[in-house]
Amino acid sequence: MEVTVKKIINDPATVVADALRGMELAHADLLDVQYDPAVVVRVDAPVPRKVAVVSGGGSGHEPLHAGFVGRGMLDAACPGAVFTSPTPDQVLAAVQRTNGGAGALLIVKNYTGDVLNFETAAELAAAEGIEVRSVVVDDDVAVKDSLHTAGRRGVGGTVLLEKIVGAAAERGVDLDGCEALARKVAGQVRSMGLALAPCTVPHAGEPSFTLADDEMELGIGIHGEPGRQRVPVRPADSLVPALLDPILGDLPFGAGDRVLLFTNGMGGTPLLELYLAHGIAERLLAERGITVRRRLVGPYITSLEMQGMSLTLLKLDDELVELWDAPVRTAALRWGL
Amino acid sequence: MEVTVKKIINDPATVVADALRGMELAHADLLDVQYDPAVVVRVDAPVPRKVAVVSGGGSGHEPLHAGFVGRGMLDAACPGAVFTSPTPDQVLAAVQRTNGGAGALLIVKNYTGDVLNFETAAELAAAEGIEVRSVVVDDDVAVKDSLHTAGRRGVGGTVLLEKIVGAAAERGVDLDGCEALARKVAGQVRSMGLALAPCTVPHAGEPSFTLADDEMELGIGIHGEPGRQRVPVRPADSLVPALLDPILGDLPFGAGDRVLLFTNGMGGTPLLELYLAHGIAERLLAERGITVRRRLVGPYITSLEMQGMSLTLLKLDDELVELWDAPVRTAALRWGL
Repeated sequence: MEVTVKKIINDPATVVADALRGMELAHADLLDVQYDPAVVVRVDAPVPRKVAVVSGGGSGHEPLHAGFVGRGMLDAACPGAVFTSPTPDQVLAAVQRTNGGAGALLIVKNYTGDVLNFETAAELAAAEGIEVRSVVVDDDVAVKDSLHTAGRRGVGGTVLLEKIVGAAAERGVDLDGCEALARKVAGQVRSMGLALAPCTVPHAGEPSFTLADDEMELGIGIHGEPGRQRVPVRPADSLVPALLDPILGDLPFGAGDRVLLFTNGMGGTPLLELYLAHGIAERLLAERGITVRRRLVGPYITSLEMQGMSLTLLKLDDELVELWDAPVRTAALRWGL
Repeated sequence: MEVTVKKIINDPATVVADALRGMELAHADLLDVQYDPAVVVRVDAPVPRKVAVVSGGGSGHEPLHAGFVGRGMLDAACPGAVFTSPTPDQVLAAVQRTNGGAGALLIVKNYTGDVLNFETAAELAAAEGIEVRSVVVDDDVAVKDSLHTAGRRGVGGTVLLEKIVGAAAERGVDLDGCEALARKVAGQVRSMGLALAPCTVPHAGEPSFTLADDEMELGIGIHGEPGRQRVPVRPADSLVPALLDPILGDLPFGAGDRVLLFTNGMGGTPLLELYLAHGIAERLLAERGITVRRRLVGPYITSLEMQGMSLTLLKLDDELVELWDAPVRTAALRWGL
């Protein structure tokens, strides 16, 4: 097939499998890739008596989720086609490959297709006698319902939840405990994003939405779903509070809270701009008496080459800080190992 | 000042300092920032009796160089204005702040302004009695002379050199040894890049070059300097050899060689495409009897939001493998610590 879209790919139909082949070669020490159905599993799976932590979703958000497979985080990731939910047989295969006898926790971003397909997989796994629980992440405060979603969308909070629950599972916390922890994190994490420029899905061949040269979109979703409003180009000092204020008001977060601040790039945003935005967000939080105890800055949940960013705030306690700091060894997040 | 360029910034004149403030807050455990002149130093500098490894260059290539400041890599980085050489007083300040009595090694990318300003700084430091050596990296095989450069440009090889020499300095290798090692790495590393779409320098306000919708540029520099040729959109199976073959023929690399393969994103390239390209490069190397022993895949030396990639190949021996594997703890590269 001829390439007509301006991307470093061969064929839009095989782009996910082609990328997985490169990932498998690049990270042979961390992960194994199974191609039909497509599943990325940690190299030592199944880990006996450990809860298997499994996630997945449409491709195009890398490093989420496959980049978080490894010790201290995910046991498996199920990459769907670009911006398309993984199939139930992918999720079932992931559970089968990683179940070490302690059951599996499924981490699901709240998109209608994902929720449905993970649910079907959970039923199929249960029918095989594997105990499975699911936790849905819906941290995006921007809009109530959206394209592809009933209720709120799952976005940046997913990264934090996968790290924290992955750490607990690694320590031997059982399925009840991992599920309760996941619900706790999902309950106290909130996010909002913005876009400066769209991305192009390989098989679509044209940008998923358009923005004028002097226009930005506040509250954008990670697939370019419409947000809250389009606004003229603004300085960062005005953009950052436009993301932060809805987040703070939603939970709500307030003076005395300790938080993890995650400043995320959508894929095509220079690190220079992300750090700049992060600095503004830290200062705004300090002014409100909120203590930033942990930070993550970088492109961890992306939308291909979309230009934009999101902020995620997680309310911390000592338990969550300790699990965040626990060693992790994946392609995209690594410390202590 | 009013923002007219579509970026997450306040004022093009203060963008580097504004980003450094965010970086300082995000990584207070790793680095200290000094603002006038701008220098990023590891938090425990100076380290007594350790050779200080210092680099720097124009901003806009993040995480290079400030993202590599920390234990096992750089002692200091000097961030110039965007795509502009740091001044001699920045480099001098970095040497003064990090000199632990064992002298300083300056790692300089081969651009006329950088070479000149690092040289001036080295003379000023020498006049203060600090022993300083400089090593110039010129690994880009694309063109002989270029905009801003006499001779070859310094690109991706710089990242690998900083890691390897940083590890040696951390182990207590003296200035002669660090300099010899840096020359060895510089002598056996080669790179080449391509661009799909340009980037916009904040104070310029418009793209640094233009490419038609169906056009890519092979051999592009990290500031958008002209490359070897503009070609119609091609599949990745044809793009990757167009980067790899000139690299292989140049050193040359051949059957039996062991290498580190670094697949780098220029800033706006999805990780999906980078892994896809990496997989193709690994297979091509295997076909030629070249063994890939270590890999690095990701955006480590970027050009703001430029879409594109580069490949870097370093010929390895046991010494270099061991130094590559040595623990490192920086904002952008971290393992074992």
